Amino acid sequence: MKINIQRLMQNIERYAQIGKTGEIGVERITLSDEDKQARDLLKSQMTAAGLEIYVDEIGNMIGLRRGRQDVPPVAMGSHLDTVYQGGRYDGALGVLAGLEAIQTLNDEGIETEKPIALINFTNEEGVNYAPDMMGSHAFAQLGDLGKILASQSYDDPTKSVDSELQRIGYKGDLKCGDFPLDSFIELHIEQGPVLELEGTDIGAVEMVQGIYWTRYTIQGQANHAGTTPLQYRKDAGYAASEIIKFAGDYVRNSPTQILSTVGTISFEPNAINIVPDKATFTLDLRSVNLETLKDGQEAIDNFANDIIQNSGLSLERDEMVRFSPVQFDDGVVSLIADKAGELGLSVKRMPSGAGHDAQMMASVCPTAMVFVPSVNGISHNVNEFTKEEDLENGANVLLNACFELANR
Amino acid sequence: MKINIQRLMQNIERYAQIGKTGEIGVERITLSDEDKQARDLLKSQMTAAGLEIYVDEIGNMIGLRRGRQDVPPVAMGSHLDTVYQGGRYDGALGVLAGLEAIQTLNDEGIETEKPIALINFTNEEGVNYAPDMMGSHAFAQLGDLGKILASQSYDDPTKSVDSELQRIGYKGDLKCGDFPLDSFIELHIEQGPVLELEGTDIGAVEMVQGIYWTRYTIQGQANHAGTTPLQYRKDAGYAASEIIKFAGDYVRNSPTQILSTVGTISFEPNAINIVPDKATFTLDLRSVNLETLKDGQEAIDNFANDIIQNSGLSLERDEMVRFSPVQFDDGVVSLIADKAGELGLSVKRMPSGAGHDAQMMASVCPTAMVFVPSVNGISHNVNEFTKEEDLENGANVLLNACFELANR
Repeated sequence: MKINIQRLMQNIERYAQIGKTGEIGVERITLSDEDKQARDLLKSQMTAAGLEIYVDEIGNMIGLRRGRQDVPPVAMGSHLDTVYQGGRYDGALGVLAGLEAIQTLNDEGIETEKPIALINFTNEEGVNYAPDMMGSHAFAQLGDLGKILASQSYDDPTKSVDSELQRIGYKGDLKCGDFPLDSFIELHIEQGPVLELEGTDIGAVEMVQGIYWTRYTIQGQANHAGTTPLQYRKDAGYAASEIIKFAGDYVRNSPTQILSTVGTISFEPNAINIVPDKATFTLDLRSVNLETLKDGQEAIDNFANDIIQNSGLSLERDEMVRFSPVQFDDGVVSLIADKAGELGLSVKRMPSGAGHDAQMMASVCPTAMVFVPSVNGISHNVNEFTKEEDLENGANVLLNACFELANR
Repeated sequence: MKINIQRLMQNIERYAQIGKTGEIGVERITLSDEDKQARDLLKSQMTAAGLEIYVDEIGNMIGLRRGRQDVPPVAMGSHLDTVYQGGRYDGALGVLAGLEAIQTLNDEGIETEKPIALINFTNEEGVNYAPDMMGSHAFAQLGDLGKILASQSYDDPTKSVDSELQRIGYKGDLKCGDFPLDSFIELHIEQGPVLELEGTDIGAVEMVQGIYWTRYTIQGQANHAGTTPLQYRKDAGYAASEIIKFAGDYVRNSPTQILSTVGTISFEPNAINIVPDKATFTLDLRSVNLETLKDGQEAIDNFANDIIQNSGLSLERDEMVRFSPVQFDDGVVSLIADKAGELGLSVKRMPSGAGHDAQMMASVCPTAMVFVPSVNGISHNVNEFTKEEDLENGANVLLNACFELANR
């Protein structure tokens, strides 16, 4: 069975017009007017495809295609929101390919044993409201719903998730957690370079790496760069460079898989001829293995503490994010790999380096993900691009895996 | 002979009201209305002290006290402009203590052999117009006067040094270079912690360190922190940390005196989960020895080049400042040390870590500086402070050294 690639490409183009930025980019921030517009379009398309529509308390949209049996459905889905200056595939692909799969079943007049559901999760990106992966987090009942609904906009603290869900008309009645699923598959662009560089068609995603985010703030003493001998300095910037280099060296020398990135930094007072009295930077540490992740974090923190103690500085650590690695269901992963093989596609079992709604859903039901290549590994960027052939391959794997799950 | 400390303290307080900020701070940016107000006050005080007033083309103010002989005068001076959110002593002390020395000679009815001059140099700080040490630079005919006069305000490019000198009425007739001097002494706060920490009263400043400022811009490639394996990264931030740490380690391990400071840094796009594609930082490198300075710069640049070449990055270097070390006149330095000793003060021969007008004047005539302690080494800050006793000691050394030079 094959999806209709012309229809899928047209639909991707149609959604890409909502919040279009640059040549092929999209900016569709969660709970914005553009988000409402995309949701309204999806609602009309779900209705046209004969789906029953449910909206839950956090605004997750669920379209249900009945099966022969009245049992929990096999679900597909992802998210329609984007980052600032984002692309047209991150999130939208998983929703629109799911819709396309359902339309294909409709075209073929196929009734499945189990029902099939299509889900658009609220606020996966988390750029204007914390936490990210909000909708799937709430769907899986992993957090305090009251707190999540009270989360304030970074842009405008007078707005909350609750107030904006009501404003755009997507504050639903369905209780979060009251929609049991048989299984869940999310199709997504890889957002990394591995599939493209290795010439592989499909990623069968086995797991999501654990992610630790930590903000380090080093306090030293501002001094004149020309008049303060080295022994009298408390140089927060030099200490920061030692820790950043250590974190980079640590992962490069690690025998087990671990990634570190220092993506943000600032010095104060940030003057050429003043020794910095404050240095702030963030560490993004990821590994597929929880022990490796914990060991890496501990080694970097121990090194930082030694540096601080030896130089009369002080250090604050803010543990911003602590996500443990999430293992997907081996049966669903194998099914994805098998279906790719049956379609004549090359496949690689791989971890996901980025966080996804599927990692929340893994606590609800057997779950896995399908990855397709990202050109140059670029995403979260207006230049994000995936070739039509790869989009088609991914959607076909999604359709066939889902079809089999729904008939088991 | 001793200056009148009550009068000096009152005068320092009077000037500190012009541009007062915070409890004891001053913000009196060159060529501003506050600068004009301070200049007008100095002009009236010079006149009251019986000085002949000259203003040169760059706005340097010179007050001349005639001596028995019609020969080039012994000069004292510094500057009345400050940095943003600066202090009351940096610059003003050297001018006002010079005035106080002349008033003391007047009180005592003393006529010197040689004339004595008091100079207020234009724009030493360089915070709104480049270059810094502008007035002394022009006085010593070290630059192109036309270019200096055309220098535009950072705040408002419609303003130039020339237009603002005319606006505040200090565009003078005297040609720069047409005022030969016998010798020059500048009294200044140390702006560093050494005298205070060592419990020394007076610094006899032998030289000014050489200063090299370089801006490094590393270009890499932005990538997702979770999805990009290490071997595919071009991490500009990690490379920056390696170079910054190397520069810090280099000076700490150097057998000869050299200081490095990385005071400013920025990453782009500066996002927690994106590998930086751009890192920019500045290096402030100083040494009393030109060879040491050159060797240090070369070692850091060589290291940076190796890092860049090994990681597929690119590097731009902007040589912002290249000041070689300046040696002061040994006779004047010794005289300062002797006079401090005669006054019962402890004295340390030392280099200046910061740049000063005196380093320009060293090319005009035998020159040296007197330093007094800075509490906690703080300057260029509203909390800049020097104790009354130290101000008095410094002014007395200035007076007695100058008196001896004028009677030789």
